[in-house]
Amino acid sequence: MAEIWLNGRFVAAEQAIAADDRGLLLADGVFDTSLVLGGTVFRAGEHLDRLVAAASRLEIPVLRADLADALAALAARQQNGSIRLTLTRGSGPRGLGFPPVPKPTLLGASAPLASSAMFAPLRLALSPIRRNETSPTAQLKSLAYLDALLAQREVQQAGADEALFLNTVGRVACTALANLFLLTAEELATPPLDDGALDGITRRWLLAHAADFGLTARERPLALDDLARGSVFLSNSLRLIAPATLAGQPKEPRDPRIGALAHGLCAAIAAECGVDPRSLGSTIDRN
Amino acid sequence: MAEIWLNGRFVAAEQAIAADDRGLLLADGVFDTSLVLGGTVFRAGEHLDRLVAAASRLEIPVLRADLADALAALAARQQNGSIRLTLTRGSGPRGLGFPPVPKPTLLGASAPLASSAMFAPLRLALSPIRRNETSPTAQLKSLAYLDALLAQREVQQAGADEALFLNTVGRVACTALANLFLLTAEELATPPLDDGALDGITRRWLLAHAADFGLTARERPLALDDLARGSVFLSNSLRLIAPATLAGQPKEPRDPRIGALAHGLCAAIAAECGVDPRSLGSTIDRN
Repeated sequence: MAEIWLNGRFVAAEQAIAADDRGLLLADGVFDTSLVLGGTVFRAGEHLDRLVAAASRLEIPVLRADLADALAALAARQQNGSIRLTLTRGSGPRGLGFPPVPKPTLLGASAPLASSAMFAPLRLALSPIRRNETSPTAQLKSLAYLDALLAQREVQQAGADEALFLNTVGRVACTALANLFLLTAEELATPPLDDGALDGITRRWLLAHAADFGLTARERPLALDDLARGSVFLSNSLRLIAPATLAGQPKEPRDPRIGALAHGLCAAIAAECGVDPRSLGSTIDRN
Repeated sequence: MAEIWLNGRFVAAEQAIAADDRGLLLADGVFDTSLVLGGTVFRAGEHLDRLVAAASRLEIPVLRADLADALAALAARQQNGSIRLTLTRGSGPRGLGFPPVPKPTLLGASAPLASSAMFAPLRLALSPIRRNETSPTAQLKSLAYLDALLAQREVQQAGADEALFLNTVGRVACTALANLFLLTAEELATPPLDDGALDGITRRWLLAHAADFGLTARERPLALDDLARGSVFLSNSLRLIAPATLAGQPKEPRDPRIGALAHGLCAAIAAECGVDPRSLGSTIDRN
């Protein structure tokens, strides 16, 4: 493991964090994952705004400028890849109570990215664990990621790629690592945030730009049975648009409209990041 | 912050943990909190067994002997107080997949304890966040503690002491930090583990010993309305037996049978730890 960004500078990743950091002891923090291409983070402003809002929800004081500095420093080193910013409440006294003088920990790390994974098709399997939409953490990229981890472990051991979550009232929420979309003859549908979906940056792009591709985008509650009525795909900031099939359902012939969305997203990313659109998306047309 | 136990020895707590520890990044780990008096951990064997079982559920390899060494080393330093053992999956590659060669992190810390808190009465308030009994983490002391933290913050800002959780089907599960018991004329009732309760060590003691105090103990589903039918108290390994009242309900006259249980538990702890029972329980009779 190389260097990481910690509270304003690059340091060795080993022995970087205090043993009483509440991120470690209580999952008391949030994170953000973004895509960097040609040294530019796609939708950097939206990522920063969302992380600031999440920190505010947890009452973790942070300056947007400090987050922006971290993102810029990491993007300068990792020209192409992914960046994860992690913000915790820092060290604190024993117990759940907030430290009287918070000293948050801001941690940043980057990694190269297999661009082929951006559009790789995935096999979904339903997790018996429900997404808890009654918790504020359902709408945050919080450090409390153990449910997703255990769900993913279980479905992967059963031969699938990704765990599908229903929420506590039985509606489709999301998958372990992504937002879910259903493309039917009539519309492009995705679960509303209140059903336990994260406000994903790629999800936002799709909702905002579906009309450019002749699609009517709609946030609406989805039942599990609804997923058989069209083509399903997943999105997050690294996978972008990944076609998905649910175990036990017949594999639909690939809907060409998904390919059109993927090409459109690639073009938008390439334009913003100033890279060749062919440099990402090599697997779109094979899916 | 002083020294902590880390993977077999005492080290400075600052800069003890790697920045890619999955406990920090994904809440990928479990912990245990126990009471030490006179250098002896009460029910040490049960705490160790439960932590081994939790680690096994998460497929984190650990030797019970290593956990026992940590507990013994910490108890030797902290003769009276609390000990927290934290076990994470350690460092790993990016993503949810398990590291091929796991190197878990075993972390131990101790703190003095205010014995007056062991039996202090608490005001409960209902949290809008539900306890997710569909998740295996509901029955583990996992690092994913953010729901409890946020719930506790909210009810404390509203003037209560502790958040009460219903589960996703509306049954009483537990509180942010404790198991819940209801003592009526007929029985001593506590929610079953399947309703989202943790298998607490003090909870076990109470279920096993209630009959010694003329009480019929029963694990059974509880509705919120049931709590008005008797006296409520909370238990965990540090608070032991804390009388609790629910906001909006009249404060019941204190049931003397709760005092008898508390005295009995004190006697059992004092006998096992070889200390004077009067050294812990100073506030029982005032509650």
